[in-house]
Amino acid sequence: MTTKDVGRAARRGPYAKSEERRRTILDAAHEVFAAHGYRGGSLQGVADKVGLSQTSLLHYFPSKRDLLMAVLERRDEITGDAFPDDMEEGLVDSVIRTALFNENIPGVVELYIVLCAESVTDSHPGRVYFTERFERLRKSYALRFAELAAQGRLRPGVDPDLAAMSLVALWDGLQTQWLLAPDEVDVVKGLRGYFNLVILPEPPST
Amino acid sequence: MTTKDVGRAARRGPYAKSEERRRTILDAAHEVFAAHGYRGGSLQGVADKVGLSQTSLLHYFPSKRDLLMAVLERRDEITGDAFPDDMEEGLVDSVIRTALFNENIPGVVELYIVLCAESVTDSHPGRVYFTERFERLRKSYALRFAELAAQGRLRPGVDPDLAAMSLVALWDGLQTQWLLAPDEVDVVKGLRGYFNLVILPEPPST
Repeated sequence: MTTKDVGRAARRGPYAKSEERRRTILDAAHEVFAAHGYRGGSLQGVADKVGLSQTSLLHYFPSKRDLLMAVLERRDEITGDAFPDDMEEGLVDSVIRTALFNENIPGVVELYIVLCAESVTDSHPGRVYFTERFERLRKSYALRFAELAAQGRLRPGVDPDLAAMSLVALWDGLQTQWLLAPDEVDVVKGLRGYFNLVILPEPPST
Repeated sequence: MTTKDVGRAARRGPYAKSEERRRTILDAAHEVFAAHGYRGGSLQGVADKVGLSQTSLLHYFPSKRDLLMAVLERRDEITGDAFPDDMEEGLVDSVIRTALFNENIPGVVELYIVLCAESVTDSHPGRVYFTERFERLRKSYALRFAELAAQGRLRPGVDPDLAAMSLVALWDGLQTQWLLAPDEVDVVKGLRGYFNLVILPEPPST
């Protein structure tokens, strides 16, 4: 082992440990915010879950707001957020794949639903995040619907912008109903139903 | 004035005053829950708004939970909740009328969105209310879509149950996006778009 290696290991050691600790805190915060919302969830509750003092926790995330933003970023990483930016994959495949994936992570869906709705309340720190997220999603889906229209595959009369907004709305609303009645509500079936309404089948290749 | 009349007035007086007080408390609770959610909103906050002590407030509503349920009932009264039970009015007219009405009461919509999402969290007192509300709405709309199907006015391939679930979901999701971006999102336009997809135009009468 050279001096350089030792230096690296020393640097990597504490760094890795700190990263691990950060990750553990984020997992705990995720659980707390999903179960109680941002306003109802407390830093003390998160600290208790990971066996830290609040002061130690604030060393990793300087404020509750910072913790919230980190949890939301982490959520984006987990879900990939179904932005159909990968041109290899079509809109339908991308949305259905993500919706199927979400069936296995009800806790993450719950976090999203709770924080999103909470964000419409007075001076909520998540408001900008959700407003921008919706704007980005609507634009991204509208582009894809417009592409389908150009290929003659959007039902005549369907507006790409309105279809994009409706798809996002439908998905969110179905997830809420699903969390309350998982045996009765099928998010994927609902999304497929909508795609079948607005997208015309591909003409058979000649 | 007879003795009987005096008795009546005496009874009506305190009763009317108490009813008025209840109504004032409900209005304040509505504002507090809409702005902070149920978990984030405090009884003290409601009491402060109406200039009562918490103890006096608890005389009218024995617990925060009771206050929540009363606020939700009041919301149902205000919105009429778009149950198309009035057979004189069709599904589309009923939904669009309510959606137009909701445009003027963003505070009530906010309360609904926030409490509904919060209700999916651990042991939330509103959970049963929202679960039952969704079930009732889905059934009610499914019946109406089935009637349209029987009249040959549902697009072939559209399932009444799935359409009902999707309509409820779409409406909720659009309202959330509208609260965050009222200038960009048009709930009524989104709902009309969906109706245009699933319901076929009435054949011209001969």
